[in-house]
Amino acid sequence: MKVKKCEILQELFKTGIDAVSPERVVKRAVKRDGNVLHVDGKCYFLRDFERIYVIGAGKATAPMARVLEELLYDRIAGGGVVVKYGHGLPLEKIAVYEGGHPIPDESSYRGTESVLNVVRDVSERDLVFCIFSGGGSALFVSPLEPLTLADKQVTTDALLRAGAPIEAVNTVRKHLSKVKGGRLARFIYPACVITVLLSDVIGDRLDVIASGPTVPDTTTYDDCYRVLHDYGIWDEVPEAVQRIVNQGRAGLIEDTPKSGDPVFEKVQTTVAGNNRLALGAAAEVARRNGYNVVVVTSRLQGEAREVAKVLAAMVEEILFGQGIEKPPVCLLFGGETTVTVKGSGTGGRNQELALALAIALKNVPGWSGFSVGTDGTDGPTDVAGAMVDGEVFKKAVAKGLDPHAFIRNNDSYNFFKQMGLLVKTGPTRTNVMDMICLLIDGM
Amino acid sequence: MKVKKCEILQELFKTGIDAVSPERVVKRAVKRDGNVLHVDGKCYFLRDFERIYVIGAGKATAPMARVLEELLYDRIAGGGVVVKYGHGLPLEKIAVYEGGHPIPDESSYRGTESVLNVVRDVSERDLVFCIFSGGGSALFVSPLEPLTLADKQVTTDALLRAGAPIEAVNTVRKHLSKVKGGRLARFIYPACVITVLLSDVIGDRLDVIASGPTVPDTTTYDDCYRVLHDYGIWDEVPEAVQRIVNQGRAGLIEDTPKSGDPVFEKVQTTVAGNNRLALGAAAEVARRNGYNVVVVTSRLQGEAREVAKVLAAMVEEILFGQGIEKPPVCLLFGGETTVTVKGSGTGGRNQELALALAIALKNVPGWSGFSVGTDGTDGPTDVAGAMVDGEVFKKAVAKGLDPHAFIRNNDSYNFFKQMGLLVKTGPTRTNVMDMICLLIDGM
Repeated sequence: MKVKKCEILQELFKTGIDAVSPERVVKRAVKRDGNVLHVDGKCYFLRDFERIYVIGAGKATAPMARVLEELLYDRIAGGGVVVKYGHGLPLEKIAVYEGGHPIPDESSYRGTESVLNVVRDVSERDLVFCIFSGGGSALFVSPLEPLTLADKQVTTDALLRAGAPIEAVNTVRKHLSKVKGGRLARFIYPACVITVLLSDVIGDRLDVIASGPTVPDTTTYDDCYRVLHDYGIWDEVPEAVQRIVNQGRAGLIEDTPKSGDPVFEKVQTTVAGNNRLALGAAAEVARRNGYNVVVVTSRLQGEAREVAKVLAAMVEEILFGQGIEKPPVCLLFGGETTVTVKGSGTGGRNQELALALAIALKNVPGWSGFSVGTDGTDGPTDVAGAMVDGEVFKKAVAKGLDPHAFIRNNDSYNFFKQMGLLVKTGPTRTNVMDMICLLIDGM
Repeated sequence: MKVKKCEILQELFKTGIDAVSPERVVKRAVKRDGNVLHVDGKCYFLRDFERIYVIGAGKATAPMARVLEELLYDRIAGGGVVVKYGHGLPLEKIAVYEGGHPIPDESSYRGTESVLNVVRDVSERDLVFCIFSGGGSALFVSPLEPLTLADKQVTTDALLRAGAPIEAVNTVRKHLSKVKGGRLARFIYPACVITVLLSDVIGDRLDVIASGPTVPDTTTYDDCYRVLHDYGIWDEVPEAVQRIVNQGRAGLIEDTPKSGDPVFEKVQTTVAGNNRLALGAAAEVARRNGYNVVVVTSRLQGEAREVAKVLAAMVEEILFGQGIEKPPVCLLFGGETTVTVKGSGTGGRNQELALALAIALKNVPGWSGFSVGTDGTDGPTDVAGAMVDGEVFKKAVAKGLDPHAFIRNNDSYNFFKQMGLLVKTGPTRTNVMDMICLLIDGM
């Protein structure tokens, strides 16, 4: 790959990732002007509040909390966030707890209880910042009494094994939790709430990010009951879970709060950072470099190697002068693809997508690109993804490597390692899913 | 689906398919003005030619030949085309032979021999129209002597079973044929040749359409030898095939003609109809109906249900106001997806893609679309494809149907049959692969 092209690609993903750093997104979303707070077009007068708290959970929430601590240092009464092991930072007024991710553990649970304790007695004169980012679902865990963490885990596992889609799993999860599905909002009510989210989900679905602790739920205990029966696991789940669901259906436990519930009246929710924001920042760099930029979608999904074929079809059409823009074109995609692992190699969805692009466009010069995870980690590897262009296939063959064999073995990591095209960013401490960029310069 | 929307969708695919009817494409490509022939910007004076012939093969070539017969009735000396059983038409000056497709049979072989006989003694004072369309590869068969049809078939089957990609299969095929890989051009030389193609392949690759009878080849007998060894089937192929390949490598049989060979000096090749043309015609209809049209690609490939997820990601982005165009938008795609069959249901790649769209966009109103095969046949069904919108999922569930179960069983045909959304066109007698249209009206 030409050095100049490589530099542009690097600037693109670095700028994209920088734009969604936990610090940047909170600074952009929450601004203070003396005694006035500006959040996404809304004003808050600090004198209206007696106490201000910051609580939350998610891998990126330590630096997010730090920004709020600095911004409101004189006013913060306390707070706490739960982050993944190794993701903590020493803060002065906000406690930082570490816990297990992606599998919640006792520490996640104890951290969450401590965080809830901080806001246990808030009043309508108080303001609570709720900050959540990717990982929030696992890190912010508080099973409804008398459920244990194990009860929830067994139930979730049974659902997944039975082939339940993630929506069904979430329906059940929310109803076994003290904080998910809007129940945190009920817990904090009647304080004023500002929820600041760093979104790691397709379409920024508010009820999905960290399982929507301050967002109205749309599902009921009846739905839980149906899901557990439909997937044939009602008899498998712990008795305590059955009891909770039955009590909920009988009205003995209050259901999750729904849209229109007064507990949401004083809640403002802002998506401070998301995939689209990263793509937008990358788009600016591409424009500065003379490209006609098309941000195609921030909702990309599907099997990585098949998704690559569609992207390749768009690139080729552009190269032949009939595509959605005239070269030089920069196509940007965001989202999160999947890989059905069949081989025994090492790789990740971004590297596999890049390898599939190299194969689909093997005889086509005039393009280059990358696919990277914004968190800096692609699958179980130490890289964010890979760069790729129309030459790499030929060069690999010349080196005696068979790209088809590498993709058959899901061994994209070793392919790009040998080709010197791995993208290493180190852990970025943020996550807005993946970015895919394709520069089409023409033949 | 609203009647009005349904009507627009129908007009879109009908107009698209009409635009690539065999008659229309030949009439557009070849025009006569008295004694002058205009072909794609080039002029031919009819008085320069002693005799004019029309030969060819492919499912659509009977109506293509008829147009030429009518246009040049006074001048045509003879000709012949090989079409699939049931695709013949009675012509006066051009013989129409029918043969087996997709598996060539004795009739295809005899038809091809008869066609070749017509032009066996052409001179530099003659003009030969060579017309090819989808199916031309199977219908235009003439094994190099002393090979038999069975020898070729056994070899092809062995390659496919060994997992050889289509490029490798074609390399071998061309070198066992008297007409493929440019050898027809050599056979007709030194007559003037006008090749008129109706393309059914991605990217209109001239050497792939009907295996490129009048197009320079890029592969050699050495390549054949390597392919047969690389896929470990050299010892499996008939001895006659081994002998041909060895004679070719030793220079005892002339290799296929390459670029620069004099036999191509008087060959003009025109792609008279292709997927892009159908999409363009559909685009016009969409524009007339007020849509912002984006023809995304005519090279779509990949597993149908995964391709659908990428298309869904584009639709959703547009619906949320951040996509490549503002609603109302019409996205057009062309190409040919694939289906890895795992279930026991009935369907085709177009119907499966439509079903996967319904699933991917199940909670998203404001869009509708179709996926259809331009030949009117989707997989082993009697329909061209299906229409789909953001309501069909919900309606199916209300009827007690589980869309997920239908797609798991590759049973898209029965799904859309029950939903009344199958698209029936009957056989269209043309083929430029598939058309996919998505109308995004907004929520």
